[in-house]
Amino acid sequence: MARTPTGESVLSRVVSIFEAFDPDTPALRVTEIARRSGLHIATASRMVKILVSYGWLSRDADGKVRIGVRLWELASRASPTLSLREAAMPFLEDLHAVVGHHAQLGVVEGEEVLFVERLSAPGAVINITRIAGRLPLHASSSGLILLAHASSEFQEKIIHRPLRTYTRNTIVDPRRLRVFLAGVRKSGYAFCPGFIDEHATGIAVPVRGGDDQVIAALSVIVPNDANARMQLPALQSAARGVARAMRSGPRI
Amino acid sequence: MARTPTGESVLSRVVSIFEAFDPDTPALRVTEIARRSGLHIATASRMVKILVSYGWLSRDADGKVRIGVRLWELASRASPTLSLREAAMPFLEDLHAVVGHHAQLGVVEGEEVLFVERLSAPGAVINITRIAGRLPLHASSSGLILLAHASSEFQEKIIHRPLRTYTRNTIVDPRRLRVFLAGVRKSGYAFCPGFIDEHATGIAVPVRGGDDQVIAALSVIVPNDANARMQLPALQSAARGVARAMRSGPRI
Repeated sequence: MARTPTGESVLSRVVSIFEAFDPDTPALRVTEIARRSGLHIATASRMVKILVSYGWLSRDADGKVRIGVRLWELASRASPTLSLREAAMPFLEDLHAVVGHHAQLGVVEGEEVLFVERLSAPGAVINITRIAGRLPLHASSSGLILLAHASSEFQEKIIHRPLRTYTRNTIVDPRRLRVFLAGVRKSGYAFCPGFIDEHATGIAVPVRGGDDQVIAALSVIVPNDANARMQLPALQSAARGVARAMRSGPRI
Repeated sequence: MARTPTGESVLSRVVSIFEAFDPDTPALRVTEIARRSGLHIATASRMVKILVSYGWLSRDADGKVRIGVRLWELASRASPTLSLREAAMPFLEDLHAVVGHHAQLGVVEGEEVLFVERLSAPGAVINITRIAGRLPLHASSSGLILLAHASSEFQEKIIHRPLRTYTRNTIVDPRRLRVFLAGVRKSGYAFCPGFIDEHATGIAVPVRGGDDQVIAALSVIVPNDANARMQLPALQSAARGVARAMRSGPRI
């Protein structure tokens, strides 16, 4: 679309500035922001200055730029994920206390699972997720729950992408993946020993909204040993609790 | 500042659109966004459409507009509060498990305390905070901790504002407030029985960063009874744990 008086080109520049930040580089110099966003340094510099004045970006003492707390606040206060996270937190806590490793809550965003909340124990088994981190739908237990309950058009689209192999256990063959997803729908859970890391097992169950649609996946990551499947009942109870809390409305 | 080619006026419109949302009204019709942001309806409509295309806003089935998950993700991933929240969460959990009511973590944002994380128990004593919610610095235990360790210029600026009286216990007199802040610095905690709600006591302690500066306040809200002060040792240990975890760097 051509540049319009509503400032589409300005908006796309704003978006490109924010997209320049990632979890590994939360603070960037303006030169780096310009490079990553493809903007001229003078343009990037002017826009950063304005965004700092609104609190959407902030500047460290050493001149590096970060996402501003004000943007986090705006995004968090009215976030569509807030009621889900608030409803889920007490159950995530219980789960975490009982299972003792990682417990997390994920939703579909684009073509991946986005983790909106996570609790983890120091020294817990390896887990590559983090809050606001993503994983592919085909490889993670949460992703497989969400994919199993998505439309068949969406499933086929994902299944026919080039799929990343994390370990020899990751399922990347379309036919095997379809069988696995059917199994997930039948059993009500995804049990994924060593799909992403040889030493860890992901176990996930669906969280259902008021209309019985699957709105999220609740999962735990435990050591890949004989006891892994024992965590399933606690996980299933927690998912029912989250669904019940969502139906009864906000607790605040 | 005058309108510039970098699109300051466009940016201010984007900001005004996002400022239209609040925790009580997370979904708005475009007409309401236009009214709250002071934009012409046609302008608001065009900008909402573009922001929806970037995932910064999203549209419900009934046409109402919400903050998009993509904006939450961008803001959360690189947020300056993320490392603090990640470091604090295990200790908030322990505190919550032991004290059994609300446990929360707040930072100064503008002239208020902004709560970046909170855990609460169903049926806990009343507490008007929420995640990404705010309270005044002079009335909340967290706010008083943060104010007590702010610069004296900042303290005087806040103290001379018209201060809201929540209950007969809220301190709004400048002289009494200065004495209270000196007490907080001396004792290392803020004990606030009934300052915001007659039935609740807020207790807060400072969380210190690597350079010993106070970077956050950790607080619990408990019933306003004789046992309230008993929670202090658990709170103080938790704050030391958070500070230690912050110094040792990210756990992920």
